[in-house]
Amino acid sequence: MTPYRTLETRFRRLGTLGEAAAMLQWDSATQMPEGAAPARAEQTATLRVISHEILMQPDTGDLLAGAEAQNELDAWQRANVREMRRRWLHATALPPELVEDLTRACSASEMVWRKARPAADFAAVKPHLETVLSLVREAAASKAARLGTSPYEALLDEFEPGGTIAAIDALFDDLAGMLPGLIDGALARQAALGPPLPLGDRFPVETQRKLGIELMKRLGFDFEHGRLDISLHPFCGGTPDDVRITTRYDETNFTRALMGVLHETGHALYERGLPVAWRRQPVGDARGMSVHEGQSLLVEMQVCRSREFLDFVAPLLRDAFGGKGPAWEADNLYRIYTQVERGLIRVDADEVTYPAHVILRYRLEKAMVAGDLEVEDLPGEWNHGMRELIGVTPPSDREGCLQDIHWYDGAWGYFPTYTLGAMTAAQLFAAAKRAVPAIPAAIARGDFAPLRAWLRANVHGKGSLLSTGDLLQQATGSTLDARIYEDHLRRRYLGG
Amino acid sequence: MTPYRTLETRFRRLGTLGEAAAMLQWDSATQMPEGAAPARAEQTATLRVISHEILMQPDTGDLLAGAEAQNELDAWQRANVREMRRRWLHATALPPELVEDLTRACSASEMVWRKARPAADFAAVKPHLETVLSLVREAAASKAARLGTSPYEALLDEFEPGGTIAAIDALFDDLAGMLPGLIDGALARQAALGPPLPLGDRFPVETQRKLGIELMKRLGFDFEHGRLDISLHPFCGGTPDDVRITTRYDETNFTRALMGVLHETGHALYERGLPVAWRRQPVGDARGMSVHEGQSLLVEMQVCRSREFLDFVAPLLRDAFGGKGPAWEADNLYRIYTQVERGLIRVDADEVTYPAHVILRYRLEKAMVAGDLEVEDLPGEWNHGMRELIGVTPPSDREGCLQDIHWYDGAWGYFPTYTLGAMTAAQLFAAAKRAVPAIPAAIARGDFAPLRAWLRANVHGKGSLLSTGDLLQQATGSTLDARIYEDHLRRRYLGG
Repeated sequence: MTPYRTLETRFRRLGTLGEAAAMLQWDSATQMPEGAAPARAEQTATLRVISHEILMQPDTGDLLAGAEAQNELDAWQRANVREMRRRWLHATALPPELVEDLTRACSASEMVWRKARPAADFAAVKPHLETVLSLVREAAASKAARLGTSPYEALLDEFEPGGTIAAIDALFDDLAGMLPGLIDGALARQAALGPPLPLGDRFPVETQRKLGIELMKRLGFDFEHGRLDISLHPFCGGTPDDVRITTRYDETNFTRALMGVLHETGHALYERGLPVAWRRQPVGDARGMSVHEGQSLLVEMQVCRSREFLDFVAPLLRDAFGGKGPAWEADNLYRIYTQVERGLIRVDADEVTYPAHVILRYRLEKAMVAGDLEVEDLPGEWNHGMRELIGVTPPSDREGCLQDIHWYDGAWGYFPTYTLGAMTAAQLFAAAKRAVPAIPAAIARGDFAPLRAWLRANVHGKGSLLSTGDLLQQATGSTLDARIYEDHLRRRYLGG
Repeated sequence: MTPYRTLETRFRRLGTLGEAAAMLQWDSATQMPEGAAPARAEQTATLRVISHEILMQPDTGDLLAGAEAQNELDAWQRANVREMRRRWLHATALPPELVEDLTRACSASEMVWRKARPAADFAAVKPHLETVLSLVREAAASKAARLGTSPYEALLDEFEPGGTIAAIDALFDDLAGMLPGLIDGALARQAALGPPLPLGDRFPVETQRKLGIELMKRLGFDFEHGRLDISLHPFCGGTPDDVRITTRYDETNFTRALMGVLHETGHALYERGLPVAWRRQPVGDARGMSVHEGQSLLVEMQVCRSREFLDFVAPLLRDAFGGKGPAWEADNLYRIYTQVERGLIRVDADEVTYPAHVILRYRLEKAMVAGDLEVEDLPGEWNHGMRELIGVTPPSDREGCLQDIHWYDGAWGYFPTYTLGAMTAAQLFAAAKRAVPAIPAAIARGDFAPLRAWLRANVHGKGSLLSTGDLLQQATGSTLDARIYEDHLRRRYLGG
């Protein structure tokens, strides 16, 4: 066996174990009785340890070097080796004791955070967050040395392979300069129009579920290889051949669960569209979190909040819920789905203020990892940033720096992918419409096949063959460009 | 680390992988979309291969010898080593090529059987069954050499550890001698009484489900550590800390699904009651299939088809389904749940004819493994045995030797555990009532705590500490005794 074939065999086993772990993870969130949590933790830990042992076999480095020297490999195989090396570098960058310390510190910090957040008690979780940050800095330094990047970029690389501070700073600074004016303008326009008409306050869960399933089918979700279920925090899980998305219903308001289902469907279409020939190999996986979020936001923000889509869906909603009158016209639905508000909470934010939430977190976490900001100054800097970017001040840390789980749980370097994803979505959708001008008219008829075919060919089916930059370059003609996203926001919210 | 501790660590990992596989298995039967089957097969195969590699490490034999020489081990630890050796012997008894050939042959044979059964086409599956039998004989011979038993006993040992032909022959011959007379007598008595009154033909699934859950809770099923779901073939799966039972509902008849739920609840109570201190160790597992089936049949046959239980449950059924009149009295329910029929199909059989179905299969498979019966003579021998034991002749092989999946799928040596389980159930229940005379009155009130406490102390909590024989001896004062079971049948069906 050549080094490449040996690696392929090992990584197939890793990929298959990852699939098993993904199914257990889905089960934990949707089916598992509470008392089974400790046993489940043992099961997933065992799968993780076995995977780590496979990756850490002493000859992996030599096999990678050997595979890299095999000139006969094709482009997919070479990309596969590149992704294998990336995983191996990440896995070997941290001493086992540091991984263990981090796991323990994050678990303790997250537990305290769960109580500190509702109590708005930052002081309670502060020492834990300090411990986590100190270990995260250590891990970032170790990874940076191994990857040849800055410490923050080394963390970022796990979620956004190849992402750089220089590129993100340029994109985000550009956007941040535009946002205050955009928010002002959108709010002024909205005030002139008056509030949208209310839709009522009684929407049976079963009706919501059926409608969600119908729209999922329309969008191309494959129920022969997937399911829709309920969980506290909606997510897209499972595997490419068994994609499991979830939502959470509110009987008094269907609009959020419905858009949530469409968002997760965007993730699901990506997973299902990954290259079949490369199942369970690193090159067959999704490219990274910004491309993944790009797929969900393309479906949710670009397609499903568009006038074309709402024209198509308005009669379906009316029939399903027995709605009547102008509240159920596409006009009003469009106003509901594009409302802007100077809100305090990221997960409740609209399309216009959301990037401001993300830019704030990106700047803060970058400074914290670099040692330029300490935990003790976090609440003040948070509130300062909120005033500057969104124009509101959190009344307490509950609506401030305690609101997101990410830092308390050790997910540093993740936040920027949300807004990189929103930009990616706008850029891909613009390119798709340029390439296939019939797409908007098709969407207005509820026909998503032309858009899906373009995404399958240009994004989904590429897996991790290309870098994120090359993927975008080939699909859209340029790397990530903030102006396309800004144009989208301006057109939709300023009517310009 | 001592050899014992090293083994304990390895077997903990094996046990945990087994738990993960059990959850995936449950998911396949209850949740998984059809298209995901090939991916799921990969996942479970990978878990199986990794488990096999752990067990087959070259030093396992030495570690077992070392642990057996550790005099400081307590009784549980010694039993744990004994069970480890048993697993290791089974795993190492077969050359890998034979395992592979068997897997392939069984999979092909089962696939052909799925079509041959409805078509009553034994000729179509005959060559496949011949291949399976020839490989099963080879495997039985290999295992026999390693275990020091006869070939058939070597197969039996996987399901019924330590089971012997001599013991089973004695029990089954005894029972077989009594059955024809018992069947005649039961049918005569039944004919004199006339048929039971019909209950109606419309029983909403949701009502059946709620009633099942209420009775499960009464019996002690722990919904903090388990679930009830739907699957084509009802089973008890999952893990001791997350027991997942299933059923299948029929809207025109609730009696079968209800008794099925109670049957699986018996299995579930056993799993949930296994010793917590020995989770994921061989000694912490259930003792074997006859003890397991003993738990389900104790709940279903001994408890839930008793007059005491039906007195308790009759008003609940009446209220749930809005039933009225004498059909819904305990008397009539008891007649429904103890109807006897000279039927052709094992899975539809009543308590009286079921053992005859099992004895027939036991005798036939024993003869086939020994080389005393060939596949070509199977249909004739089957029909001959049916006439002799039950007094009916299958009109075709569909209702004859094609009806069960076991042989076609490679599960040789499994059948006797059904009736050994029925005997075990009768013997345990008799002993429980002797030890705690208040049990029948408690059951009549719907209070199962006294029975459950006795089972927990005498069976469930023992795991695999004792051999099956010693377990029964300690719990009931004797090893398995056919007369106790025969007495039960006589009392219930002849009123004697």
